[in-house]
Amino acid sequence: MHLIARVQAVLIADDPSTFVTRELDKVDLSFGGIEGDRHFGIIAKADVRQPMYPRGTEIMNRRQLSIVSVEELQGIADRLGVDEIRPEWLGANIVVCGIPGLTKLPMGIRMLLPSGAGLVCEGENEPCTGPGKQIANHYGVKELTHRFVKAALQSRGIVAYVERPGELKPGDEIEIQI
Amino acid sequence: MHLIARVQAVLIADDPSTFVTRELDKVDLSFGGIEGDRHFGIIAKADVRQPMYPRGTEIMNRRQLSIVSVEELQGIADRLGVDEIRPEWLGANIVVCGIPGLTKLPMGIRMLLPSGAGLVCEGENEPCTGPGKQIANHYGVKELTHRFVKAALQSRGIVAYVERPGELKPGDEIEIQI
Repeated sequence: MHLIARVQAVLIADDPSTFVTRELDKVDLSFGGIEGDRHFGIIAKADVRQPMYPRGTEIMNRRQLSIVSVEELQGIADRLGVDEIRPEWLGANIVVCGIPGLTKLPMGIRMLLPSGAGLVCEGENEPCTGPGKQIANHYGVKELTHRFVKAALQSRGIVAYVERPGELKPGDEIEIQI
Repeated sequence: MHLIARVQAVLIADDPSTFVTRELDKVDLSFGGIEGDRHFGIIAKADVRQPMYPRGTEIMNRRQLSIVSVEELQGIADRLGVDEIRPEWLGANIVVCGIPGLTKLPMGIRMLLPSGAGLVCEGENEPCTGPGKQIANHYGVKELTHRFVKAALQSRGIVAYVERPGELKPGDEIEIQI
């Protein structure tokens, strides 16, 4: 069985001062993710997301890419009572539509791209206050920082890593193998 | 929630002529698996196990280690009507006891070792005729080659990759985080 997601945008976090991403016409997905992106690397250092390992030790990077769904972002916006949540504010690398339940996709499943590339889903990207601050700043409502974390539970998208390199661009269809 | 598995044996496939493994006193798990083992490597070439990718193209190696459970191997032996199934014949790298349902562990979960190393479960290692031939040869019963494949479904263990390097030896307890 498989689902089809359509790519709306691809983005990169290449400003060292922020996790906020910006749109590109296309991205080249390499082993390790998107070169130049702050989460690029086959190996990464353990941080607060991997409390079972000492902070700073080297581990395989299972969080190379952040993928969000248009439908889920709108759901978060609705719950927060704001017009929109921009994927840039969440540091998203790939925006898809057609998969309303993106965040619930199980770990380990493959996502195949038209270029022949393949991604592996590493499950829910648990919401933290970073994107909340971006949203709060944009709308000038301080409370949104913490309200985001709750409103975005199970809808902030997934993280993934590159299993096979290749290109990805808006309009591409991603085949998600359940 | 977590389960505890106890390590009974660690093994390596370091004879280039066969996938059959042999026991060691301990193994050093590196990024890529066990150095010198035929499945070692952060990157591997796609084969019959990854039909979604062209044969021979480079992909991340999600099948670095083969882990089997004593209880499941005995179950296979019982179904085949033989005394025992040796983990060596299956090319197993790690033999554990205490986890009768090892093969059903979901993809993506972590297994933490006393050395601080961590493994990631990549799900069921689907049985093929290779180990069946070893079993058939040992017992001198040709039919066991194919009977193994059916008898070993959902009980031939899992594959895994190294998330964080470290040592592993018999007697170690593995904490499986569900």
